Amino acid sequence: MDINQYLDQQRQRVDRFLEQSLPDRLRDPDKLYESMRYSLLAGGKRVRPILTIAAAQALGYDDDAMLPFAASLEFVHTYSLIHDDLPAMDDDDYRRGRLTNHKVYGDGMAILAGDALLTMAFELCSQDGSASGLTAKQQLDIIRELSFGSGHQGMVGGQVMDIQAENQEVDLAHLQKIHSHKTGQLIRAAVRIGGIIGGASSPQLESLTGYAEDIGLAFQIADDVLNMVGTREELGKDAGTDEKRGKQTYPSFFGIDGAKKLGEECIERAINGLQSFDHQADPLRHIATYIVRRRS
Amino acid sequence: MDINQYLDQQRQRVDRFLEQSLPDRLRDPDKLYESMRYSLLAGGKRVRPILTIAAAQALGYDDDAMLPFAASLEFVHTYSLIHDDLPAMDDDDYRRGRLTNHKVYGDGMAILAGDALLTMAFELCSQDGSASGLTAKQQLDIIRELSFGSGHQGMVGGQVMDIQAENQEVDLAHLQKIHSHKTGQLIRAAVRIGGIIGGASSPQLESLTGYAEDIGLAFQIADDVLNMVGTREELGKDAGTDEKRGKQTYPSFFGIDGAKKLGEECIERAINGLQSFDHQADPLRHIATYIVRRRS
Repeated sequence: MDINQYLDQQRQRVDRFLEQSLPDRLRDPDKLYESMRYSLLAGGKRVRPILTIAAAQALGYDDDAMLPFAASLEFVHTYSLIHDDLPAMDDDDYRRGRLTNHKVYGDGMAILAGDALLTMAFELCSQDGSASGLTAKQQLDIIRELSFGSGHQGMVGGQVMDIQAENQEVDLAHLQKIHSHKTGQLIRAAVRIGGIIGGASSPQLESLTGYAEDIGLAFQIADDVLNMVGTREELGKDAGTDEKRGKQTYPSFFGIDGAKKLGEECIERAINGLQSFDHQADPLRHIATYIVRRRS
Repeated sequence: MDINQYLDQQRQRVDRFLEQSLPDRLRDPDKLYESMRYSLLAGGKRVRPILTIAAAQALGYDDDAMLPFAASLEFVHTYSLIHDDLPAMDDDDYRRGRLTNHKVYGDGMAILAGDALLTMAFELCSQDGSASGLTAKQQLDIIRELSFGSGHQGMVGGQVMDIQAENQEVDLAHLQKIHSHKTGQLIRAAVRIGGIIGGASSPQLESLTGYAEDIGLAFQIADDVLNMVGTREELGKDAGTDEKRGKQTYPSFFGIDGAKKLGEECIERAINGLQSFDHQADPLRHIATYIVRRRS
């Protein structure tokens, strides 16, 4: 299969849903919607929603009714970027090649736009699901995954660990703990939510979870490497920021080549873990490889 | 019934649940939990959770299994206070007689603690509910209410409208719109969630909704009046801040006596709307009166 074509198609599918999910700026409070749309529709790769879709497809489910659940992960991801970029946190001026949300709308609006996006993720997942063929129980399971992956035991917890670790000596085990929370848990949630949508059995959900944990780690390693070797054009934001901040990363432990090799090993493990799935899991397999080879 | 005794008992019941709902500071990331606990356990009146409990009781339901759902409203309320107090928003130094969260933990941690509390509200509502006797459908309905009341069409939307209206001429209709979103929708959600827990019929849920909208308005009017006439000791924060900020309020439209009278009318309407309920709705009736007579 042509993975680039697949990713393009699924990204467009997600983008169409995202575009119509938010009221336009003509509705009150117009500034809030403008600010939410500015960041949500800034043209990301939509990796997390596509993982949800690909996991559901691996189990034979491919109905558009899953899009609100897939999109909810992009809502959470986008809110986290807006809050992370704030002066009180990473203080970044650029994101995806454009000014960050607070540089355009001010810190207060950026905080509120993030809050609204996070809340709306749960609104999307709790809508009447009768059209999707999902049971209320499945929807509840999805919401539990989403809240776990994005909250104090997941993404937010990891973000706090990351801040606490800045300019401190951090060993490899602690670095892994930070990343498995900060980026890993939401990727894990994305894949597991796809599994729940597709009606995965317990062993199937377990296989998918293993896959997600492996690619989550690979994703973070690739991010660290890109931050070191990527150009400003490729990244759409400043490069080399981790080093400047004195942050420990995978390349700082293993060197660039060592980190790359570690990423490749994760991917191999991720793909091996999908052996019980048939060709319908090919997108998941190709996404794994894509993650470590991407340039931005 | 002795409403003060009732409120004390229910507040303690909510506080006991809140106290054990968050990991203590010994768990990683310790600073996050410390910051979350600092604001969540700061001794509020727990009006919203108690409204949920009282609404469920009005329908004959009084099991402790409803506490996670009731508590979720306090999680949302607390997160909104933390974010509102930030320098990028209201820039308040004191809340409930203590330093605000960001004055103690810094702006970044305060943002993250708010994010984690909001996310955890949905985690609480999506836990396996088999013990509560609630169906998955009921839990999903609760989550929908909570996300609607706290998000872009509810509390966050109202907060944005409020910011946009500062130092602008606002007519009464617009003032009401701001408040019905900023404080009204979450109170509405609190009461309706209690109704859903108690298994309300459609007409019952409608009556409860009318009650909630009336007391929500009365609550805001009372807040405006208190901000004007209360002392720093009573409020636990600076008084007269609305006037200093050039904010329009109910007293600025109707005078203090006129605003108080309007509040009393709302309460009368709220109580009348509960006529189809028996004595089990007495707590709801007394809470309505309490709201406009409170001193803080």
